[in-house]
Amino acid sequence: MNIATPTPQAFLADFREVSKIGLVSDGAVERQAGTAPDGEMRRWLCQWFEAHGMTPIVDGIGNLFGLVTFLPDLPYILIGSHLDSQPTAGRLDGAYGVIAAAHAASAVMQAVQGGLLTPKANIAVVDWFNEEGSRFAPSLMGSSVYTGNLDLETCLSTLDESGTTVRDALTEIGFLGSDIAPEASAYAEIHVEQGRLLEDHNRSIGLVTSNWAVCKFEVTVEGEQAHTGTAEMADRRDALVGAAGIVLLIRDAAVAGAGELLASVGRITSYPNVPGVVPSKVVLSLDIRAANESLLEEAVRDLTQRMPVFAATECLTVTFPTTNIRSSVQFPEAGVRLAALAAEACGLSHERIVTRAGHDAIRMNEVVPTIMSFVPSRNGASHSAAEDTTDDDLVNGAAYLTHVLAMLVSSDVDELKNV
Amino acid sequence: MNIATPTPQAFLADFREVSKIGLVSDGAVERQAGTAPDGEMRRWLCQWFEAHGMTPIVDGIGNLFGLVTFLPDLPYILIGSHLDSQPTAGRLDGAYGVIAAAHAASAVMQAVQGGLLTPKANIAVVDWFNEEGSRFAPSLMGSSVYTGNLDLETCLSTLDESGTTVRDALTEIGFLGSDIAPEASAYAEIHVEQGRLLEDHNRSIGLVTSNWAVCKFEVTVEGEQAHTGTAEMADRRDALVGAAGIVLLIRDAAVAGAGELLASVGRITSYPNVPGVVPSKVVLSLDIRAANESLLEEAVRDLTQRMPVFAATECLTVTFPTTNIRSSVQFPEAGVRLAALAAEACGLSHERIVTRAGHDAIRMNEVVPTIMSFVPSRNGASHSAAEDTTDDDLVNGAAYLTHVLAMLVSSDVDELKNV
Repeated sequence: MNIATPTPQAFLADFREVSKIGLVSDGAVERQAGTAPDGEMRRWLCQWFEAHGMTPIVDGIGNLFGLVTFLPDLPYILIGSHLDSQPTAGRLDGAYGVIAAAHAASAVMQAVQGGLLTPKANIAVVDWFNEEGSRFAPSLMGSSVYTGNLDLETCLSTLDESGTTVRDALTEIGFLGSDIAPEASAYAEIHVEQGRLLEDHNRSIGLVTSNWAVCKFEVTVEGEQAHTGTAEMADRRDALVGAAGIVLLIRDAAVAGAGELLASVGRITSYPNVPGVVPSKVVLSLDIRAANESLLEEAVRDLTQRMPVFAATECLTVTFPTTNIRSSVQFPEAGVRLAALAAEACGLSHERIVTRAGHDAIRMNEVVPTIMSFVPSRNGASHSAAEDTTDDDLVNGAAYLTHVLAMLVSSDVDELKNV
Repeated sequence: MNIATPTPQAFLADFREVSKIGLVSDGAVERQAGTAPDGEMRRWLCQWFEAHGMTPIVDGIGNLFGLVTFLPDLPYILIGSHLDSQPTAGRLDGAYGVIAAAHAASAVMQAVQGGLLTPKANIAVVDWFNEEGSRFAPSLMGSSVYTGNLDLETCLSTLDESGTTVRDALTEIGFLGSDIAPEASAYAEIHVEQGRLLEDHNRSIGLVTSNWAVCKFEVTVEGEQAHTGTAEMADRRDALVGAAGIVLLIRDAAVAGAGELLASVGRITSYPNVPGVVPSKVVLSLDIRAANESLLEEAVRDLTQRMPVFAATECLTVTFPTTNIRSSVQFPEAGVRLAALAAEACGLSHERIVTRAGHDAIRMNEVVPTIMSFVPSRNGASHSAAEDTTDDDLVNGAAYLTHVLAMLVSSDVDELKNV
């Protein structure tokens, strides 16, 4: 396929520019969904879209699209990721995929305009709102509203810890839109691996074949307020003691999974959380994952049985909702094969890989043929300032993504479904 | 001693009225230091002082005094407690002692004015600022500034979790004063027991002979941010796992103390505290107490040795400041005997008791002869909405306190020092 790939210098220059937005310390960035730095990223991208002949639109949940419409009335190949970040996180997670997608779209647009490529669909670059779910839970919010997995009004009314709604946060940064989101016929996303396999195997591109199954839920431990300095130890119903035991139960369950299971508690909220009072209520946010869905189900079942038993020994109660597993799903085999051809066209080594992390591509894979790809991560570091990828790998990934997009735009993508 | 005691009806009516301030649910009140309900309590008390011929003044750390000056230039018998509360706490803790002191002072003032009592000192009712230390640490703030244990400017610059200073909080409620605090020659305080001994022994008054030794300090556990869904379990340095282990270490140490030791973690702060990130930093507020100071020292030494060892097994670091023990100190024996006589004069049963909880009286006992007394607590409940004491016990305590005050006002209090 004879198309221009993005200029490495232009791509790296743009990426360095956005990497300054929300910089907090030691290379960490903080651009939680709907905050000022998220707004700044989005304004940067809107200007970039306009400077490169794309039309920016924003839908009702704040998903930002840059449209390249060759054939009005036909659907769009969506390509992108997310610009929001975790607190004090790396500069690559999400942002790399959006900037690479923008450059890929621009290159493919030029190829079409230069008569080098005949499009069978339009292109829309997308920045999905609130992929991370750190400020507003759940994660994958924008893509889940797009795919119909989450209700728009419920999401707009979701509160952050300070009581601000998604609606108000989006309004504040100027990204509560009312445009109709473009209809997708396929979706492609590139992301840093957030693992060590590509680096260990010295490969440039990871072709994602499926995602790990995930179970996330909140556990509430309840006891009784008491004076830290007067209540007899035997009389205490200390919710934090119960929560501490549960944090260790969860860790031990994951360790027992011998690499097949990951689990942790990312958030803990204790009430009344003052030095002189035995805590009466603690809420834990659990995150448990496995490639093997049955193994995950078994681990969750086991934990949900152990937690109340442990709590009862401390005279505490434990409550949690019915647990809901996000399944392990295959990405279409025809898409993986297309992606392998794109990597080979760019002279890049590749391997099949499974994603442990959640991505908007997992939601999109439920509704349209989806291709998810990785570039290497140094030491697998993620959700931390230690996250890193070499410039060569970033540039290679952008070139590869351009080929993927070109192939999708010029193919009959319905055929990707059939495998 | 022939003096009027407070009218039970008037006392109970006043106490019921203040108990409505800061009411949140199920009988719990919330009047953390420097908040609007704390201000409302204080304005109520100022009006009460004025209506009963006392002069309200406020010092630089917001301690509120109601002066009854018989003999200008002579020192004051201070009598009181604190009006601030923990979050969702009981209505009695602190507030009972202040309202009882106000009524006692009024009754003694009438006795003096009626020629029934010849004063050798003046009286000042006191509401100490921020006894609880829940919003602004440390506890006993107002009394510690008064006694010179804490520096005024440092306290005024102390921040709450939202970044508000003590200075701004006091200004906001109108209680950042500039009056010179009255010079004390003795101090008396009555409080609910916050334990079960008086109830179990069916006694009306507890005569406090000494306080438990206390050690409070913050422990910081540090690890590394990572993605909850991608980092290998073996690679994680999860600060919350370390903190959970430490919470259980502390509880186990206290349980091993077999009733001689109390310990817990009242506050936990985790960073970044979002669902998708392995926590990198957790801060725990420890509170460890024992009647026997050597036992406490040994427990603290043991814990401060175990914590880093445990943390090292998780590749975490643990830091804490040099630990500082608030000693177990005797209250003057002559004061305990005076208090016993006052109880007997009121026909009330009494017993000697040790306070586990901290009180402003512990600070005052370092500088002037101090009498600390208890009324019973139902089930020993404290720092919770379950806190309760019968009306009879409250009224008896107020009558007893009036006798204590009358004896102090008409005695040579310097003699209390000599035992």
